[in-house]
Amino acid sequence: MRIALDAMGGDHSPEQTVKGAFDFLQSSCGQGSQVILVGQSDALRAEVKKHRFNPSQLEIVHTEKIVDMHDRPARIVKTKRNSSLVQAVELVRRGEADGAVSAGSTGALLSAALFLLHRIPGVRRPAVCPLIPTAQGGFLLCDAGANVDVRARDLVQFALMARANSVHLFDHPRPRIGLLNIGTEAGKGNDLTIRAHGLLAQHVDNFIGNVEARDLFAGVADVVVCDGFVGNILLKVIEGMVLHVAGWAQEKLKQHPISQLAVPLMRPALKDLAQELDYEEHGGSPLLGVNGVVIVCHGTSSARAIMNGLKTAIRCLTEELLGSIRRGIEAHLDIFEERNAVTTA
Amino acid sequence: MRIALDAMGGDHSPEQTVKGAFDFLQSSCGQGSQVILVGQSDALRAEVKKHRFNPSQLEIVHTEKIVDMHDRPARIVKTKRNSSLVQAVELVRRGEADGAVSAGSTGALLSAALFLLHRIPGVRRPAVCPLIPTAQGGFLLCDAGANVDVRARDLVQFALMARANSVHLFDHPRPRIGLLNIGTEAGKGNDLTIRAHGLLAQHVDNFIGNVEARDLFAGVADVVVCDGFVGNILLKVIEGMVLHVAGWAQEKLKQHPISQLAVPLMRPALKDLAQELDYEEHGGSPLLGVNGVVIVCHGTSSARAIMNGLKTAIRCLTEELLGSIRRGIEAHLDIFEERNAVTTA
Repeated sequence: MRIALDAMGGDHSPEQTVKGAFDFLQSSCGQGSQVILVGQSDALRAEVKKHRFNPSQLEIVHTEKIVDMHDRPARIVKTKRNSSLVQAVELVRRGEADGAVSAGSTGALLSAALFLLHRIPGVRRPAVCPLIPTAQGGFLLCDAGANVDVRARDLVQFALMARANSVHLFDHPRPRIGLLNIGTEAGKGNDLTIRAHGLLAQHVDNFIGNVEARDLFAGVADVVVCDGFVGNILLKVIEGMVLHVAGWAQEKLKQHPISQLAVPLMRPALKDLAQELDYEEHGGSPLLGVNGVVIVCHGTSSARAIMNGLKTAIRCLTEELLGSIRRGIEAHLDIFEERNAVTTA
Repeated sequence: MRIALDAMGGDHSPEQTVKGAFDFLQSSCGQGSQVILVGQSDALRAEVKKHRFNPSQLEIVHTEKIVDMHDRPARIVKTKRNSSLVQAVELVRRGEADGAVSAGSTGALLSAALFLLHRIPGVRRPAVCPLIPTAQGGFLLCDAGANVDVRARDLVQFALMARANSVHLFDHPRPRIGLLNIGTEAGKGNDLTIRAHGLLAQHVDNFIGNVEARDLFAGVADVVVCDGFVGNILLKVIEGMVLHVAGWAQEKLKQHPISQLAVPLMRPALKDLAQELDYEEHGGSPLLGVNGVVIVCHGTSSARAIMNGLKTAIRCLTEELLGSIRRGIEAHLDIFEERNAVTTA
């Protein structure tokens, strides 16, 4: 299989993206695959030279431009068509790649994917669905930021798509689907979640009802559904806490010389913990609802995260994730029929 | 000053609530104050007997009933008028107490306070505004759960009320007010936050714009404004992480005997850190917008949290928090005039 990698996307490109491609091709998952590095060819050739490896599985497609944080995502295909991010998706559109991976702007990637590959039939809104790691293996959060204003019916589609993701990419035969809410009882919540609760119960297998934010780390659900505004806040507060609490702990250790002595002894345990909480272990996540395999990785991705993102792309293809999502959506298209839509959400 | 304490509210009542009252009266802040313990008199007398102290500053008001989690908050004054929670507020209404403190259900307390004390003139929605502790001293989160569906103008009132709270209770002469959002640029967000951004800039002193959830722990703002659904999710995910990550760390330590050796050495630093992250240090928070001093404490409050809640009530009175909120709201009543309201939010 051929995967197009936006080699200029992310904070540590192209060094870490190119290294990630090499690591992937040398892994068992990468055997028989090809990676198309998309980006500025001079820079990429310089990176490729650093690695001792037969580059027959690697190809470089030159693009001049780079998408940056000042670009407006919605207009990216018009304003930066010849960028590494857009061209990686374009290769999928032309059938020259089977999937695309990028650690660039999620908004820009989603916009390019929608414009070039369109939606899976029946999907109203594509969604972003990262794994949030926990000591219990983590949960999928959907939507984590693609859709800030949604209707209750959209949450049902998020649940159906994330369910397919959980089944095929995380080996949950029958994932527990929870609705993120401010109380566990049915009837709790805001207008959106109160409406969504009934629809989810009706349309989604193994819907376990409302789940509270404080219980997420106890492993109450495999998939947590919410609107993209709430999901993005949740995702970022978790990131912020992991970062800052670790920083505070180090500050405190410095203030107590006796505690400072303990640091070397703590390392094995802290390393285990850090690994469990590390999103890079888990690679990127597919843009759910897009009619093609497009994987978004975290902007700070290291080579390992890129390698895992490429593995995720392969997994989406071998597991036929798109077909599974399509069937799930088709089976519940009735919630989007206009008559029903008006009365229920 | 006389403070009515719902002595039956919270997970550790009446033992910890009564102890909290004693600790408060023995503190410098409690000198010259009186506490009215509201609850089942037999149980309260038994607790009072455990303490060696002159109880002239303590009074018991008997109530038969206790509000529990099965009671519907909205109907609490009708269904459980003779409960410790409702009667503590009733004492304020009758002028027999200057303020009330409860670690019972926030929803029930808010409902009782609204029914018996009403709103400060001009306030459309009262709000809950706890301090979220961080290594930088923490930030006030408003609203943390009282209002799940709000309009942009409500967020302006939350900001004005939380601002007064920050000035008077936390000694910030000019608090930085941020709008919780999924990006820092103006124009980011959902319908609600995009609309609120302009109104906040127009009406709120030292509005610093959007703040992202990942930066909250870096101390970017003194007051963080959001709707109560998002605020409650944020509050609870923070609680959940503190709880579970500490638990995981202990698990990991057990798996590495060498790390286990380090635990005693780590204690001084971890104790410091735990103290900084502990909401009990900071006592309860006033129900903002209610026309009376009513302090809500966390359901798991220990004696120390109750003592600090009583101190918060005294502080609200000596600082004349209600007057300050009233003036703040009055100065910006124009956003609630119907003509303006229709066009802006």
